Amino acid sequence: MAITLVHFADVHIGVETYGRPNPETGLNTRVEDFVRCLEFLVDRAIEGEVDLAVFSGDAYHTSSPSPTYQREFAGQIRRLSRAGVPVVLVAGNHDTPGTFGRASSLDIFGTLEVEHTYVFTKPRLERVETCKGPVQIVGMPWPSRSWMLTREEYRKLLEEELVGKMEEAYARLLEGFARQLDPDIPSVLAAHVMVRGAGLSGSERGAVVGRDPSLLPSVLANSAFTYVALGHVHRHQDLNRGGRPPLVYPGSIERINFGEEEERKGFCLVRLEREEGETIFGPWRAEYDFVEVPARPFVTVEVEVGDSEPTDAIVDAVRERDLEGAVVRVLYRVREGKVLVDLGRVQRALRERGVWKVAGIVPQVERPERRPRAQISRELDLKEALRRYVESNPELKPLEEELVQYALRLEQELEE
Amino acid sequence: MAITLVHFADVHIGVETYGRPNPETGLNTRVEDFVRCLEFLVDRAIEGEVDLAVFSGDAYHTSSPSPTYQREFAGQIRRLSRAGVPVVLVAGNHDTPGTFGRASSLDIFGTLEVEHTYVFTKPRLERVETCKGPVQIVGMPWPSRSWMLTREEYRKLLEEELVGKMEEAYARLLEGFARQLDPDIPSVLAAHVMVRGAGLSGSERGAVVGRDPSLLPSVLANSAFTYVALGHVHRHQDLNRGGRPPLVYPGSIERINFGEEEERKGFCLVRLEREEGETIFGPWRAEYDFVEVPARPFVTVEVEVGDSEPTDAIVDAVRERDLEGAVVRVLYRVREGKVLVDLGRVQRALRERGVWKVAGIVPQVERPERRPRAQISRELDLKEALRRYVESNPELKPLEEELVQYALRLEQELEE
Repeated sequence: MAITLVHFADVHIGVETYGRPNPETGLNTRVEDFVRCLEFLVDRAIEGEVDLAVFSGDAYHTSSPSPTYQREFAGQIRRLSRAGVPVVLVAGNHDTPGTFGRASSLDIFGTLEVEHTYVFTKPRLERVETCKGPVQIVGMPWPSRSWMLTREEYRKLLEEELVGKMEEAYARLLEGFARQLDPDIPSVLAAHVMVRGAGLSGSERGAVVGRDPSLLPSVLANSAFTYVALGHVHRHQDLNRGGRPPLVYPGSIERINFGEEEERKGFCLVRLEREEGETIFGPWRAEYDFVEVPARPFVTVEVEVGDSEPTDAIVDAVRERDLEGAVVRVLYRVREGKVLVDLGRVQRALRERGVWKVAGIVPQVERPERRPRAQISRELDLKEALRRYVESNPELKPLEEELVQYALRLEQELEE
Repeated sequence: MAITLVHFADVHIGVETYGRPNPETGLNTRVEDFVRCLEFLVDRAIEGEVDLAVFSGDAYHTSSPSPTYQREFAGQIRRLSRAGVPVVLVAGNHDTPGTFGRASSLDIFGTLEVEHTYVFTKPRLERVETCKGPVQIVGMPWPSRSWMLTREEYRKLLEEELVGKMEEAYARLLEGFARQLDPDIPSVLAAHVMVRGAGLSGSERGAVVGRDPSLLPSVLANSAFTYVALGHVHRHQDLNRGGRPPLVYPGSIERINFGEEEERKGFCLVRLEREEGETIFGPWRAEYDFVEVPARPFVTVEVEVGDSEPTDAIVDAVRERDLEGAVVRVLYRVREGKVLVDLGRVQRALRERGVWKVAGIVPQVERPERRPRAQISRELDLKEALRRYVESNPELKPLEEELVQYALRLEQELEE
């Protein structure tokens, strides 16, 4: 007999970059993309009659999502719970408020006591009953200072010591839970955390100041767990491939930016099976498949203009690529400072290829020596720092205003 | 046999003026005041074993409340529904998003299908089963353009005509619902709306531009209804006193500002009773009691300084008043421009009286002629307009920064 579960993470409802308001629905079109992928996942979970759903954090892009975003995420989670599927919800860093006493964006499921939902905003071991029997869940939300350290520890420690202390506390806590597990019952560690050595997409948001705790794979790959369901890193990967237990990031369900261009997006369907015979491990083992969702493609068209007529070179490059329904940026490399490009012709060529959104058509100027890194010191204000950063990363130029706007909003949010 | 219900409105979780963060709870102390009154109400409803709860709108102060505020409001509503009390939730103007397609802050109860809750974000007639039998509920949320007018009507009408059209549509809709009611079953109209002739507290927030729809009492006091449960106006009043049906604003459950200083704050306990014998009305009639909640007192100490030493006069006036636990402002009237007041002594006198928060100690200068009204035109930006308004209303001076800050945040919210 096998217990099946769907494992997903990093849903990030609220990412609006490259989208526009859809007058038919009132939703931003990029938010619709994210919801479509989540809906696809829930469809598959319900059709496949999974016994359990494990969500490893980052439901929303901000810790105070609008009622509209809550409707979209909660509506899909409710479909699972209505179908009788127990849903484990672990708070990620995006779901967690920065201040003591504030509620997480996932708390509403607990407050309203939604049947079949299990919210983890603090670490906890809970036995969850599924149709096919119990599963032991160790839920480890994002390691925030509020639950990892006492007030006294926090006061006494230096900034540099804090992260190390949190990592130690996390490992100790996990070891304690692992010892309490009943080996006759399958167990899942659901953790929103950074594992050392994981390949990042670059779209993960970390600490604003200082360093976030990160754990060694060996700390998490405790053989007391049948499966380790991770969240936080947007690129799908197994950090214990072939080993037991699997240590799996399913990755985000949609692309947040061009950092995720090359990645497949999806979720994991996991089977927890009871093995015959004796092994050095417990009687339960996990196997899983990665299932792709219909995420919107992001495509970078890079063009070496060389000695050709630049507009011709770009249009030719555009015509060679499959750009249907994609968010596209064109980066063309030219030798000298000024080159005249007929942007109208390029735009037309892009439209003919069925592009969904042009993120930018940006020259990359070759220089004999490498551009110096932007000089960013802590003393610069955020806006100025961002502008300087964009100066040394010209492919970001088309996004500059948006970047600054989002950054300032974020800063304001943090200050509040 | 009587069916009992608790009727409340204008909870406004999120008003923080005069409060400060409570380090023990992470909540603003004024938010704690509002939650305490709501909790008191829910305690009374559960102890009194009411059969139904009717909330007539404005749960939160903004249409995108933080997860923390949602936890506080939803937690109390969940106590009612957990006790098996059906809860009717009608969206007020503060709960309603400005844009088509956006969710209301009350939608989460519907999305998560919380048992025994009935959310009305569009007008609807619904039969709600209570322990003592069915009640017909006509829920009328705040009349927003999105549900009152077709897109075509909205486009074709002039600004001045819009409000009149909405009022007509509202009356027609209500008449239609009234005709569908079964006279053998008690019926409650739950409406968040402005009734003409109602006495305002001044803390009600209306349209940003133009005029809000307002209804004649006669339109709402349709004898097909057993009881009319209103929300929006913060002052408790019955606009059909002694008549049938009662047309009742319970008022807000806490004071939002000094405009509500003189008002008792609370909710209504309503009995729907079946009458013996024939009347010109249906067989059901309603009686209700207003129940006070422990709202925080607001006290204005007005002092005529006259020829006395001003500090002595103020301190004497302060000592005469019961100020225990109150938010207090001192307005002292002086004949000429400059008078020296020892603010330290006044503050000490206020502290000795157990004042909870000093909102301001402000001179009111007598002038031969009345100050001109602030010159505010639409062209001024919001910040400048507010500053000018404060100039001509000196008692607002201590709140100026807070006012400007909140106004700008509101403006930003509206733009988003």
